[in-house]
Amino acid sequence: MNDSPLLLSIAVLGGTGREGKGLAYRWAKVGYHVFIGSRSPDKAKAAAQELWKMLAGNALVEGLSNQEAAQKADIVVLTVPYAAHRETLESVKDLLKGKLLIDVTVPITPPKVTKVQMPPAGSAAQEAKQILGEGSEVAAAFQNISHEHLLQDQDVDCDVLVTGTSKDARNETLKLVSAAGLTGWDAGPIENSVILEGLTSVLININKQYGSTHAGIKITGVNKT
Amino acid sequence: MNDSPLLLSIAVLGGTGREGKGLAYRWAKVGYHVFIGSRSPDKAKAAAQELWKMLAGNALVEGLSNQEAAQKADIVVLTVPYAAHRETLESVKDLLKGKLLIDVTVPITPPKVTKVQMPPAGSAAQEAKQILGEGSEVAAAFQNISHEHLLQDQDVDCDVLVTGTSKDARNETLKLVSAAGLTGWDAGPIENSVILEGLTSVLININKQYGSTHAGIKITGVNKT
Repeated sequence: MNDSPLLLSIAVLGGTGREGKGLAYRWAKVGYHVFIGSRSPDKAKAAAQELWKMLAGNALVEGLSNQEAAQKADIVVLTVPYAAHRETLESVKDLLKGKLLIDVTVPITPPKVTKVQMPPAGSAAQEAKQILGEGSEVAAAFQNISHEHLLQDQDVDCDVLVTGTSKDARNETLKLVSAAGLTGWDAGPIENSVILEGLTSVLININKQYGSTHAGIKITGVNKT
Repeated sequence: MNDSPLLLSIAVLGGTGREGKGLAYRWAKVGYHVFIGSRSPDKAKAAAQELWKMLAGNALVEGLSNQEAAQKADIVVLTVPYAAHRETLESVKDLLKGKLLIDVTVPITPPKVTKVQMPPAGSAAQEAKQILGEGSEVAAAFQNISHEHLLQDQDVDCDVLVTGTSKDARNETLKLVSAAGLTGWDAGPIENSVILEGLTSVLININKQYGSTHAGIKITGVNKT
């Protein structure tokens, strides 16, 4: 991986969804080369075109199949619904060797979205690590951000907790969190992903109880230096 | 249970520890009758005496054995280290019928405190429910508060997420959160306790990574009415 944002490239698999498109927009805006991946390359191209227009043509953003996007990019971000999690990972598994996967997936299946229910692996991110096996690093991040905020150029009042299979994986992910204009925190090993993913159910619950739509979290009591 | 804070009584089992003593202090200060429970009644009496002096004698606070405290109180709060969780619950199990248990326990065992490790029941609070069986309600709360702040009369910059076996259990707990001068949130069913308890490991991890000692969380994006 390369330290220069101008040369790094990012694939956003499932990037036609609202969360993925919002992240792709933020990274393309600051100069990353972004590949939007989808099972439907046509939909991916349409989403890429939409972002390119939003950024007045000042962006490197392409729509591709999930496989092509995973192959071309330095870092791969997964933003599919949980129902498509395993299938999508299996379809790009061999293309992710030597790469970092950032898993944004929340393992909730409607209508049961207010109760934490983790897969046998412990979390979606740990499941991803099991599927990919040795040779790929996995990080988890961005589960708690409201997608509406990402496509708007406004401050997001929600921090991003980052876990990962190594300190390098977490640091690389934290760079992309900052690049997206968000505040990130190293939340420890991949086993802690259950907290990030499960917080989504807690926040949905709070939205239901208190009539809100954008409950988020902020870390307090720490001065970042 | 009684709605009048003047009549309600609270047992804090393991109340000679720093977290328990801090909570006992805050509740005694606003008029709750507080029973500090300990395996050692002498230590409980000493802790009660200490709080009574801090409150200049304007407090109803007594030191007792865990069993006596559990028997006398309307609501029972458990603040023991995880190593004493099961044993303490077994010792008061029959005394908690018809009562609410608020479990503050975090299932971490030093030195592995930065990695989430839940018991087979899913969380300490779910384990408590299994041990107590039918006839007792269980809530989980206060896992993420730094104990240093509780014994001082300063604002605590950390919210309290509350889960529980029923809406009533959560509401009763949320009243005690407010009474302690803290901001609480209904975080849903008892199955979500893993998030509250596991967040402690995430916050310890953040303290380690960023050189802080009091990392906490705040819920954002919600206007409480």
